[in-house]
Amino acid sequence: MLVTTHLFTPGPTHMPEAVRRAIDVPLQDHRAPDFHKLVLPLQEDLKKIFRTESGEILLFAGSGTSGWDASLANCLSPGDKVLTASYGHFSDLWIAMCKQHKLEVEVIEGAWGEAAPIAEYAKRLAADTNHEIKAVLVCHNETATGVTSDVAALRAAMDKVNHSALLMVDGVSSIGALEFRMDDWGVDLAVCGSQKGFMMPTGLCILGVSQKALKASEVAENPRGFFDFKGLLNQYKGGYFPYTPATTLLHGLAQSCLMILEEGLDNVHARQFRLAEGVRRAVQAWGLELCSRRPEVHSDTVTAILVPEGFDSNDVLKTAYNDYNLSLAAGLSKVAGKVFRIGHMGAVDELMLLGALATTEMVLNDVGINVTLGSGVVAAQKYYRESKQAEPQKAVA
Amino acid sequence: MLVTTHLFTPGPTHMPEAVRRAIDVPLQDHRAPDFHKLVLPLQEDLKKIFRTESGEILLFAGSGTSGWDASLANCLSPGDKVLTASYGHFSDLWIAMCKQHKLEVEVIEGAWGEAAPIAEYAKRLAADTNHEIKAVLVCHNETATGVTSDVAALRAAMDKVNHSALLMVDGVSSIGALEFRMDDWGVDLAVCGSQKGFMMPTGLCILGVSQKALKASEVAENPRGFFDFKGLLNQYKGGYFPYTPATTLLHGLAQSCLMILEEGLDNVHARQFRLAEGVRRAVQAWGLELCSRRPEVHSDTVTAILVPEGFDSNDVLKTAYNDYNLSLAAGLSKVAGKVFRIGHMGAVDELMLLGALATTEMVLNDVGINVTLGSGVVAAQKYYRESKQAEPQKAVA
Amino acid sequence: MLVTTHLFTPGPTHMPEAVRRAIDVPLQDHRAPDFHKLVLPLQEDLKKIFRTESGEILLFAGSGTSGWDASLANCLSPGDKVLTASYGHFSDLWIAMCKQHKLEVEVIEGAWGEAAPIAEYAKRLAADTNHEIKAVLVCHNETATGVTSDVAALRAAMDKVNHSALLMVDGVSSIGALEFRMDDWGVDLAVCGSQKGFMMPTGLCILGVSQKALKASEVAENPRGFFDFKGLLNQYKGGYFPYTPATTLLHGLAQSCLMILEEGLDNVHARQFRLAEGVRRAVQAWGLELCSRRPEVHSDTVTAILVPEGFDSNDVLKTAYNDYNLSLAAGLSKVAGKVFRIGHMGAVDELMLLGALATTEMVLNDVGINVTLGSGVVAAQKYYRESKQAEPQKAVA
Amino acid sequence: MLVTTHLFTPGPTHMPEAVRRAIDVPLQDHRAPDFHKLVLPLQEDLKKIFRTESGEILLFAGSGTSGWDASLANCLSPGDKVLTASYGHFSDLWIAMCKQHKLEVEVIEGAWGEAAPIAEYAKRLAADTNHEIKAVLVCHNETATGVTSDVAALRAAMDKVNHSALLMVDGVSSIGALEFRMDDWGVDLAVCGSQKGFMMPTGLCILGVSQKALKASEVAENPRGFFDFKGLLNQYKGGYFPYTPATTLLHGLAQSCLMILEEGLDNVHARQFRLAEGVRRAVQAWGLELCSRRPEVHSDTVTAILVPEGFDSNDVLKTAYNDYNLSLAAGLSKVAGKVFRIGHMGAVDELMLLGALATTEMVLNDVGINVTLGSGVVAAQKYYRESKQAEPQKAVA
Repeated sequence: MLVTTHLFTPGPTHMPEAVRRAIDVPLQDHRAPDFHKLVLPLQEDLKKIFRTESGEILLFAGSGTSGWDASLANCLSPGDKVLTASYGHFSDLWIAMCKQHKLEVEVIEGAWGEAAPIAEYAKRLAADTNHEIKAVLVCHNETATGVTSDVAALRAAMDKVNHSALLMVDGVSSIGALEFRMDDWGVDLAVCGSQKGFMMPTGLCILGVSQKALKASEVAENPRGFFDFKGLLNQYKGGYFPYTPATTLLHGLAQSCLMILEEGLDNVHARQFRLAEGVRRAVQAWGLELCSRRPEVHSDTVTAILVPEGFDSNDVLKTAYNDYNLSLAAGLSKVAGKVFRIGHMGAVDELMLLGALATTEMVLNDVGINVTLGSGVVAAQKYYRESKQAEPQKAVA
Repeated sequence: MLVTTHLFTPGPTHMPEAVRRAIDVPLQDHRAPDFHKLVLPLQEDLKKIFRTESGEILLFAGSGTSGWDASLANCLSPGDKVLTASYGHFSDLWIAMCKQHKLEVEVIEGAWGEAAPIAEYAKRLAADTNHEIKAVLVCHNETATGVTSDVAALRAAMDKVNHSALLMVDGVSSIGALEFRMDDWGVDLAVCGSQKGFMMPTGLCILGVSQKALKASEVAENPRGFFDFKGLLNQYKGGYFPYTPATTLLHGLAQSCLMILEEGLDNVHARQFRLAEGVRRAVQAWGLELCSRRPEVHSDTVTAILVPEGFDSNDVLKTAYNDYNLSLAAGLSKVAGKVFRIGHMGAVDELMLLGALATTEMVLNDVGINVTLGSGVVAAQKYYRESKQAEPQKAVA
Repeated sequence: MLVTTHLFTPGPTHMPEAVRRAIDVPLQDHRAPDFHKLVLPLQEDLKKIFRTESGEILLFAGSGTSGWDASLANCLSPGDKVLTASYGHFSDLWIAMCKQHKLEVEVIEGAWGEAAPIAEYAKRLAADTNHEIKAVLVCHNETATGVTSDVAALRAAMDKVNHSALLMVDGVSSIGALEFRMDDWGVDLAVCGSQKGFMMPTGLCILGVSQKALKASEVAENPRGFFDFKGLLNQYKGGYFPYTPATTLLHGLAQSCLMILEEGLDNVHARQFRLAEGVRRAVQAWGLELCSRRPEVHSDTVTAILVPEGFDSNDVLKTAYNDYNLSLAAGLSKVAGKVFRIGHMGAVDELMLLGALATTEMVLNDVGINVTLGSGVVAAQKYYRESKQAEPQKAVA
Repeated sequence: MLVTTHLFTPGPTHMPEAVRRAIDVPLQDHRAPDFHKLVLPLQEDLKKIFRTESGEILLFAGSGTSGWDASLANCLSPGDKVLTASYGHFSDLWIAMCKQHKLEVEVIEGAWGEAAPIAEYAKRLAADTNHEIKAVLVCHNETATGVTSDVAALRAAMDKVNHSALLMVDGVSSIGALEFRMDDWGVDLAVCGSQKGFMMPTGLCILGVSQKALKASEVAENPRGFFDFKGLLNQYKGGYFPYTPATTLLHGLAQSCLMILEEGLDNVHARQFRLAEGVRRAVQAWGLELCSRRPEVHSDTVTAILVPEGFDSNDVLKTAYNDYNLSLAAGLSKVAGKVFRIGHMGAVDELMLLGALATTEMVLNDVGINVTLGSGVVAAQKYYRESKQAEPQKAVA
């Protein structure tokens, strides 16, 4: 293949070169005398990115999905009641995993394209005076619909009624890219993977665990298997693992953390907003609708776009992939065929997004969705120019 | 660091250059129209290496330890009885995981340095006329002691009494390197990881699952979380994954399988024997004892060496690592401080092993274990020369 | 740096991933018994790409500039007369090197933006009845102005008067990408480097040498130093080098040749035309002028664009580089400040060019050149869609 | 290939991993506004390694052989007299290049295995009262025989008679690894390549040029072609190149310099001595002779070993390569068939050398040279242990 397919899925994302090279290392002994020199600083950097001082960040060979498993398995017991909401593919998958773990799942029916229904959560929490709910689950950034939910508000709702449940948050496609404040928001379990905001290959499950969650894990009765917190922590606190960790990916993650922290979390979030906003302006110019229903909930890591009635979004995907070397993301489950998605996390910039938007315009026309060629590009160009001029000037070499 | 530390642990092992380069690729969409072109042939190649035609080879982001979890979680129910034996660190860890999964574990007490006590297994199986035992577990190659067990004999013992239990085998440090015959031996669950015989970085759990095990998984009641077979298989049979797989590692594994199959499994096993035998001759020449008690059970992927009474094998490890850039493997749990190990899997050859043996001789003397310098090297040299001359001649360019 | 600067210079170009990985290999002995297995097939592949059967393709550690040196040094003697033309930065540099080699240089004054003035060459050749001209030099693709010249016509002019001079062609930015026919065009010395059509890093001088040129080199009297043909050929014909070659780059070049030949030279040329034509349509839509004056001579590997009077093209370059992560190429010598260039060789496709064009539009506006945002993008989109539809359909997976 | 052939040639050498990764970067524009940020610090680091403050270090795409060419071409004129000595393959090749450049070469006949005959140089210089000799050439480290010459003594001989000639030194296999003091020794042209002491792939010619040599280049009349100092220096002093440089290799060289300077030049030299001395002890234990005749002149970067009468060293090479995956270096020209060589530059340590020595013992026996297996290994082990104990202790982690 002459040109590598251009990847605009919401994870995996484009790796920065420095991350890619950090991973491309010979193998090493994870029980070597100096191995902790890799692991302990990495733990500290991850804490900064999760914005937690009191919690622990655990690492497993796995993925974001593993993280859901690990959270439920370690901190809950069969029959425990959890409160959650259904408003997208990934929130639903988490619900399915709860059921698999034999939890009693109270599901708030939300809407695809809407954020987590915090008011309804609040109502249910208030009604739960006996604190039968042991954990409250929420998907921070629903990757399927491109919607970001208000975790701080959910915490406020819990605090208002002094609810004792654990707060478990799927931050798979948010942490590292979008604002996430584990301590401020009182998140007890923050689930992440390596292949989204951390701009890495898939292969690591990254888990933020509060002290409260650690305590819960001591009494919970679900079998945890591989993901057992206690089994890990004993050695992990000293910078080691009780089993073979994915060392090459740990090196990449260390590099990724370094880059994120050097840029500064606030700058990363601002960059994510800016890149995403350009894409949204393009979609608006095309006359198409976002899956996300309100500006307040638009995700800055992924944009889900509805194709007009009568069209199949899979045609968009296939044409993009086969004819233009462009990898867009599919609509999933309820919105399969209705939505295509553009990811804008990782090592991506304006030029790449403009190329992707221009190509998408061609693709849309090819499948019969007659957007005006160039219309989205121009909208994005204008926004990118304006917003760049608002930035502090860089010195010209 | 000028020279990368020389790795002689029994996994991770040295990656072949071609495997390393196969992993160093840009990221891609695992839902792309042609992604199955990577996954389906990989499944077929893995079947050849596991020597199964009827089973499935499943892949998860994870490690060998994940594989134990996956096996127990998918195919058993709480309270199920399993029969297993304790004769090393890894067999013991698996026992611990059984307990965590709330299984009733019948443990045959074996000896560290001995293989799985097949006769005792046979006795217990024969006594279990009601087939209360639902699974028989065995560690094929106990990495902690350098001992290989006779899985075929265990299967024969099961067959002799027509026992219906599942046969679950930890093949983490054997499959891909040592003879392993999933179908011939009637293995129902064969557990492997990427970082041993497959000469890869850690990060993949590779699982051989028989049709019988798949059926068992349909009725078993343990929660499986991330490792759910059914959830995977639906898409996996078409070459896709229901969640993000570790794509870069899949590329590496494909390359690794290619290399193993090109060399031929029998040739791989013969090479492993030859390399290992050289190391064993060296140990004998040193006047040291192997942890493995009998030639019949010596492992060809790892050699565990006992330090004489009064010495701490950790001193060997530290001196090797800090003074000579050599990464040997530690003794684990019961043999911590008593054993050091030399791994000889992966991209390793005579020259590398001779360098490691020569260095180990220096290290041993440095810590006060007075082996004769050169004695082990000479024993290995002699063996390697003799055994090479017995090989068919390669044409000289 | 989060995103690697987007490279749109006319060499170095984007490397295909497979080429990049082919280079990233451990070092090896260039006198090893099997080294010829790398070199001999590479020689054959290069002959196919140069389209020569009778000539030799020589490889030196060096660059395109080295190739000029090598050609003049090996085949000419001090005081020899050469006929050439001045019509761009690179043709001029070659003239300067002729003078340095103490050749008598007859220079036809051409125009920047025009191709080599073949008619004038013809006139001079016809007048040279004593064949005092020992070599005729021409720059096939003048990278500075984006102009391709008609080598076949120059050969015809030589043949018409049965001129005995050597025909030396600078094919640095053409060979591998544009049509080049060494045998058909009777080229005696074809000069190329690795970093343009061969999509490689700089570091190799690639030289096509006819039998006639080899014979000339036997009597020529210029010192050749490192570039001595005879010194090389003795071992080179057997697949070896008399000194250490750049082995890692040889591996990359082998991969590059493989890809070019798999695609097919005609397909490569067609792709180059198509990509370039999209860029030209964009420039036209912007209302800007090309440096190249006539469609017949437009280069398909690089497009040189004139900024309007009163603007400095260096501002375009700096703004693109510093504000938009886009690396365009500068105007050189006579057109410094007047021209900026977009390279479109190597691993580049429509999406990338559309991204570069969209970004260039922003840059132009930023520096005060008010092209309509989106205008060039739309022109390119339209052309790319139309021309794609004219292609044979690819099957959709 | 499972295991990469073990490389023990005296250049190319083993690359450190960090160097290899530094090279594996995307391509970039060498005229970009910030390109000088790579080149200028690199120039400074190279000056430290060449130990010059007043000279310039020039970089060309090329190799060590290019460096000879560049030196002669820039600083001398046809007919100029140069004084040099013949005592090995590489000193002879340089003589041949002098002749090619039409210099008048006064050759002192030295002996292969001996160093440059300084006394004879002194005599000739003293006799040259008219300073007809324009340049004195010496090969610092004759890679073919494993002999290091005394450049400081040659400078002293020149100074004694106030000789005005330029001092040109082939430091290809010494600079970066062996003690080399450009300013202290009054070296006017120091020739090096990337693939020896700099632990890099071949592809860069690295040249130390004194101010006196630069002045000489202004009046010298040899054509320089590609290697013209003046043409380079204009832009190079600002951190740029007048033509496309080998950017990926520049990145590698920057990393290499960083590592050398971090280790410290004196430490590098001490390490080279120690590694080499182990090899020499092994050769002595084998009862074989070095090509180098006296301990005072033994090279610390390469050891050339004579095979006994009646044996062909090429058999050693072939057997090592074909049967044991070991790449030793051949004897060249006068000592072809008589000598094999072990390189010990670059990313090499005791373990690797012990492996190579042990393997060489097997190879020697295989071809009928009956050295005692293990004898060389033991000698090296003993030396490495003793000399390590003499080092300051490293803290154990």
